Amino acid sequence: MRSLLLTILLFPLAASAADRARDLGIPFDGTPGRLNAITDVPGVTVGHSTIIADYPNGSAARSGVTAILPRGEDSLFLPVFGGSAVLNGAGEMTGTIWLEASGFLEGPVMITTTQSVGMVFEETIKWRVNKAERDVTGYAWSDPVVAETWGGRLNDENGFYVHGEHVAEALESAKGGPVEEGNVGGGTGMVCYQFKCGIGTASRVIETADGEFTVGALVQANYGWRDILRIGGAPVGQEMPVQQAADVRTPMDDEMGSIIVVIATDAPLLPHQLKRVATRAGLGIARVGGMASNGSGDIFVAFSTANARELRAGTNLTAGFLGNENISPVFTGAVLATEEAIVNALIAAKTMTGFNGNTVEAIDHEQLQNVLRKYNRLDEE
Amino acid sequence: MRSLLLTILLFPLAASAADRARDLGIPFDGTPGRLNAITDVPGVTVGHSTIIADYPNGSAARSGVTAILPRGEDSLFLPVFGGSAVLNGAGEMTGTIWLEASGFLEGPVMITTTQSVGMVFEETIKWRVNKAERDVTGYAWSDPVVAETWGGRLNDENGFYVHGEHVAEALESAKGGPVEEGNVGGGTGMVCYQFKCGIGTASRVIETADGEFTVGALVQANYGWRDILRIGGAPVGQEMPVQQAADVRTPMDDEMGSIIVVIATDAPLLPHQLKRVATRAGLGIARVGGMASNGSGDIFVAFSTANARELRAGTNLTAGFLGNENISPVFTGAVLATEEAIVNALIAAKTMTGFNGNTVEAIDHEQLQNVLRKYNRLDEE
Amino acid sequence: MRSLLLTILLFPLAASAADRARDLGIPFDGTPGRLNAITDVPGVTVGHSTIIADYPNGSAARSGVTAILPRGEDSLFLPVFGGSAVLNGAGEMTGTIWLEASGFLEGPVMITTTQSVGMVFEETIKWRVNKAERDVTGYAWSDPVVAETWGGRLNDENGFYVHGEHVAEALESAKGGPVEEGNVGGGTGMVCYQFKCGIGTASRVIETADGEFTVGALVQANYGWRDILRIGGAPVGQEMPVQQAADVRTPMDDEMGSIIVVIATDAPLLPHQLKRVATRAGLGIARVGGMASNGSGDIFVAFSTANARELRAGTNLTAGFLGNENISPVFTGAVLATEEAIVNALIAAKTMTGFNGNTVEAIDHEQLQNVLRKYNRLDEE
Amino acid sequence: MRSLLLTILLFPLAASAADRARDLGIPFDGTPGRLNAITDVPGVTVGHSTIIADYPNGSAARSGVTAILPRGEDSLFLPVFGGSAVLNGAGEMTGTIWLEASGFLEGPVMITTTQSVGMVFEETIKWRVNKAERDVTGYAWSDPVVAETWGGRLNDENGFYVHGEHVAEALESAKGGPVEEGNVGGGTGMVCYQFKCGIGTASRVIETADGEFTVGALVQANYGWRDILRIGGAPVGQEMPVQQAADVRTPMDDEMGSIIVVIATDAPLLPHQLKRVATRAGLGIARVGGMASNGSGDIFVAFSTANARELRAGTNLTAGFLGNENISPVFTGAVLATEEAIVNALIAAKTMTGFNGNTVEAIDHEQLQNVLRKYNRLDEE
Repeated sequence: MRSLLLTILLFPLAASAADRARDLGIPFDGTPGRLNAITDVPGVTVGHSTIIADYPNGSAARSGVTAILPRGEDSLFLPVFGGSAVLNGAGEMTGTIWLEASGFLEGPVMITTTQSVGMVFEETIKWRVNKAERDVTGYAWSDPVVAETWGGRLNDENGFYVHGEHVAEALESAKGGPVEEGNVGGGTGMVCYQFKCGIGTASRVIETADGEFTVGALVQANYGWRDILRIGGAPVGQEMPVQQAADVRTPMDDEMGSIIVVIATDAPLLPHQLKRVATRAGLGIARVGGMASNGSGDIFVAFSTANARELRAGTNLTAGFLGNENISPVFTGAVLATEEAIVNALIAAKTMTGFNGNTVEAIDHEQLQNVLRKYNRLDEE
Repeated sequence: MRSLLLTILLFPLAASAADRARDLGIPFDGTPGRLNAITDVPGVTVGHSTIIADYPNGSAARSGVTAILPRGEDSLFLPVFGGSAVLNGAGEMTGTIWLEASGFLEGPVMITTTQSVGMVFEETIKWRVNKAERDVTGYAWSDPVVAETWGGRLNDENGFYVHGEHVAEALESAKGGPVEEGNVGGGTGMVCYQFKCGIGTASRVIETADGEFTVGALVQANYGWRDILRIGGAPVGQEMPVQQAADVRTPMDDEMGSIIVVIATDAPLLPHQLKRVATRAGLGIARVGGMASNGSGDIFVAFSTANARELRAGTNLTAGFLGNENISPVFTGAVLATEEAIVNALIAAKTMTGFNGNTVEAIDHEQLQNVLRKYNRLDEE
Repeated sequence: MRSLLLTILLFPLAASAADRARDLGIPFDGTPGRLNAITDVPGVTVGHSTIIADYPNGSAARSGVTAILPRGEDSLFLPVFGGSAVLNGAGEMTGTIWLEASGFLEGPVMITTTQSVGMVFEETIKWRVNKAERDVTGYAWSDPVVAETWGGRLNDENGFYVHGEHVAEALESAKGGPVEEGNVGGGTGMVCYQFKCGIGTASRVIETADGEFTVGALVQANYGWRDILRIGGAPVGQEMPVQQAADVRTPMDDEMGSIIVVIATDAPLLPHQLKRVATRAGLGIARVGGMASNGSGDIFVAFSTANARELRAGTNLTAGFLGNENISPVFTGAVLATEEAIVNALIAAKTMTGFNGNTVEAIDHEQLQNVLRKYNRLDEE
Repeated sequence: MRSLLLTILLFPLAASAADRARDLGIPFDGTPGRLNAITDVPGVTVGHSTIIADYPNGSAARSGVTAILPRGEDSLFLPVFGGSAVLNGAGEMTGTIWLEASGFLEGPVMITTTQSVGMVFEETIKWRVNKAERDVTGYAWSDPVVAETWGGRLNDENGFYVHGEHVAEALESAKGGPVEEGNVGGGTGMVCYQFKCGIGTASRVIETADGEFTVGALVQANYGWRDILRIGGAPVGQEMPVQQAADVRTPMDDEMGSIIVVIATDAPLLPHQLKRVATRAGLGIARVGGMASNGSGDIFVAFSTANARELRAGTNLTAGFLGNENISPVFTGAVLATEEAIVNALIAAKTMTGFNGNTVEAIDHEQLQNVLRKYNRLDEE
């Protein structure tokens, strides 16, 4: 099928700086970091590889890979403490069995489309092997964290269009600074609340008894049906009903949805504390109306970039950590950053036509503002 | 200390029929059952024992016990399939290790105040032993489900005022029909969002491919600080700030909060499915703004009253169940019923003065309506 | 019923120093600590309260309480990192929801008989409240760890013979040094492999890259049927079959069995690592032939006494810990100490007659030695 | 690297019928099924693809794939109830998040070598897609169960020698009847207790109140160091010490070990019951001396082939199940079948030389018999 390739468009349809929820006057609680992105947590880098192509046989790729590196280039050699959580388990995040046992997240978090988990798993290992000086004993053991959401409305999932070059591109292009949102990377073909969706990010600066820290979230959002959507507490989904139900929603749509949430913080936390942080992503989803329906893979991972020196293998290790009584601001930050990241994904995404000629409309910003205004929930200066 | 007892008030300060959230015009999604209560699930009964007393030494009881019997009087002899879930584990629900292993909820769910878990555990067993014809081999094994939230703002937790008579009263008085809400039973001294709170209940009628079922929730709500409260999506907490912070909140208040959620349904579900249902209570809490802070015991149990004949001990057992692809309406019903049950607890509770002269004000209904009106979220006909 | 009390025998039937498995030549792997007891871990103290009484109405008490204090008298004020695990969940260990969430074991581990969990829970809190200088705000929150095994063959479980005085006795008498085994404390009426059983303990000294540490185990053993018993790998149960099956075993016996295992170490470990350590108790049980049958509550808790200074509440906390790659010796120590603790419980226990005139015979030491000799598994110098 | 291929040997080094543990007189408890294999459970099929090749650059393949199909060819269209468990999580088994949530095992269980999990994941989906009539909506969602153990002592893990053809071969060749053991399929390069190891299987026929059922186990065994090996309870490892430690063991060896256990039964069990069954594999490992060390991925999956008609998607579903009080024989069968499957893997494996010229010796059968004879544990007629 690949030999029949007619056109390949390999560029990001990234959101412009203006396309963020806050810029539209959508209200959120808490104080965002400078970029309002997961990269506000120092050291975290994000890269995307976006695959958009149409084939003469009718197949279409609207897919990609997103890579989050907890310590940027050092991630391969210096782990972070991490934890994971599942709200609804209709999905895959590899590597979590070892993450839970060890407490360590070793390497990047990769997010892609459902049928490409295997390829991304394989190619992430190969990328890692190539990065390392070849070990003379032939030793290597790798169990990368690879997660997915199902893009089959716009992407031909059985085209298996993600390859090693895309994995490498996502990993090699990872950087700090502003993060592209919407139709990029693993989020390219994603849909939430029956609007076009994809990648979103946000952050919160929190105050604790141990000082100020940052909590960032990045989501690949692909879940939910229209009616349940809430933004800023307003019943946006009910006010912006689906116009052409038959065209935009199939019976399987809400069942195939999923959301992957990655939470990063520089607050020093132990693995069992990070598991608690990961769990909070579900509360952020609920604030946007999410119901974690049967077919949704709502799977979360959280990590802390603190303790960089302390986590090198060796003896007499020590780790700093927040006392439990000081941890609640991290939880609140994770909830609020997840909520805003989802809305950012919705706002940044652009209308897309893909597989089988299916079109999924982006949410109309002006119409959304009107709804929020109706409910006195639009921040207008 | 009990011998110094000056006055004992042992009557329920129950909510009147008018004191429910819907009656005030608060908007909710979904269709409630006839009573909008957990007792809409046929067979479920609820009983309260409310303890309100003041002592000359300054100690005060604002405590009690609430009992939920999945199959009413048959609960001792006929189990239900059940499952439990923890959102934040700063609390106790005994009996869950066996519930998770066996898939069976055997007997009632009891809810009380923190320091009385042991007494309620002991006395629930004794009640059960007394109910049974004495077994000649001396056999008995019982591991009751007893949960708690911390009532120490209004109740002298170290007074240990719950006794066998209260456990028996809650169990013996359990009945179907309308459920008392607010300052009753285990919820007598509870506080949420720095308003007086307590017991609340609600239900949803759901449509599935297998037909119509009911999902009911009962909560003992005692968590959250003012700022985060949302009702109907409106930022109620921010609009109704705490007036006398020093008097209504101590540094430990939000840390000691908790919420126990009991979800009942007549939809036929297997234990692993009920565990998923229990998890959804957390989404309901999030819809009211809950953050599951470090000190909150957010612990949930769900059960199905279906399969009554099938769950008697024996051979060749069979159980009916919903296919996973038909289960999402149960999830949604659980989320929405939990949300409304919490708001019902807030609305039904009355201002209370208790231990150390502490007073916790009930939420002002008219002021709340004004806030909802401001956000165009008040249902007014 | 208590008023009909005829005789109360309240003394420990403790094992003599000679009554330990090693002294009989039973082979074990690994190197024990000085006392071959959980108290080899510095700071750990153990106390028992043993209840043996017969009543004219035919009721009989063969019950008690065992208390393990991770830091001795400091346990109330200085927590330890801890974790728990369940092999088969037909039993109760309260406090584990908070233990799992917080990573902290706060206070003692209490073990008793099934129907007395509630009383021990209540009285442990009261003991704690009495120990603390009364807090002027009335604050107290306690969720003690209380576990149980079912003693109903020899103890009238529905007599509820454990009271506050016994809880206090176990806690107040806790000390370091040699630990009484067999028919003492919570283990008084217990039976394993259809032999009299009860409390047992053992320890291992382990070498790691971080230096030498001690791992200790204490068990309350009450599980298994004769046929599956293995000691030193030899099929002891098959060689020492039950003589009077009708008299020693009822259909419920193997179903009602349970084993609680408490593992202590001074190796510095984080909570998620201690959860892994707790899991290893199951491997120790399997080495004695245990099958974790449906009715068995095989529930384990592990804690580390390291990081004493570091775990005081506050800011800028740090904790030492073993790198995962250095942790396996702790696992092995936990497995081997659990195995030997179980055999020590069997060896120390004495034949007992109790409720309904039931007698459970202790394992015959000489006969056991003969079986081990047959399989060339007796250490004879 | 593949272009440098000099010789490819692609044939199974299968165990002959004589090479099974029982045939050597090794004693086991319980009653095996007719073949003493997982395929004694009606409908279960097993296929292997074995990859053995040497390359001029020094790289070497000693790898492969093993496929277990719960319902043979029907597995793609008719799920089974299933559950999974982790004893030590240093490994990967994909698909378990959905298995735990749904209770369904959909499709085959695949086992391979560590670095090939991604490829097997991808190719299992492709095989499935090719099997299905192409869905016109482009729909497909697949999350296969793929597990691994690390074969790097004999296999160049970074050669990535498993490809689609091997996945297809394992799946297409799956059949009932006798199962090849030892150096085959995913087990080709595996090592346990520092002896050559690999695939093994066994079964037990169990009696329950609901009638007779079969429990089968298949293992890919690759864990443990010599000293801890026990067979028939005898300290075999201590009696057969490693001769050339430097050559057979590297510091990483015991850390990289793992064991995957697949348990099948025709006993009707619900998902939460199958999770309990899966847990029992750990007790079987302990009977052979396993310690679940830090680097070992001891991951288990259990399924029931009962309820074939009942598990088709639809409405008014029902499922038969054993009452919990009748389930213990299934547990015991799972423990004993796992134990024997491991020993069968050890006995069937042949000495192998592989990557870097490393040789791992098979266990000497005669020497083993001598050890068992010394401990009076050899069945000789």
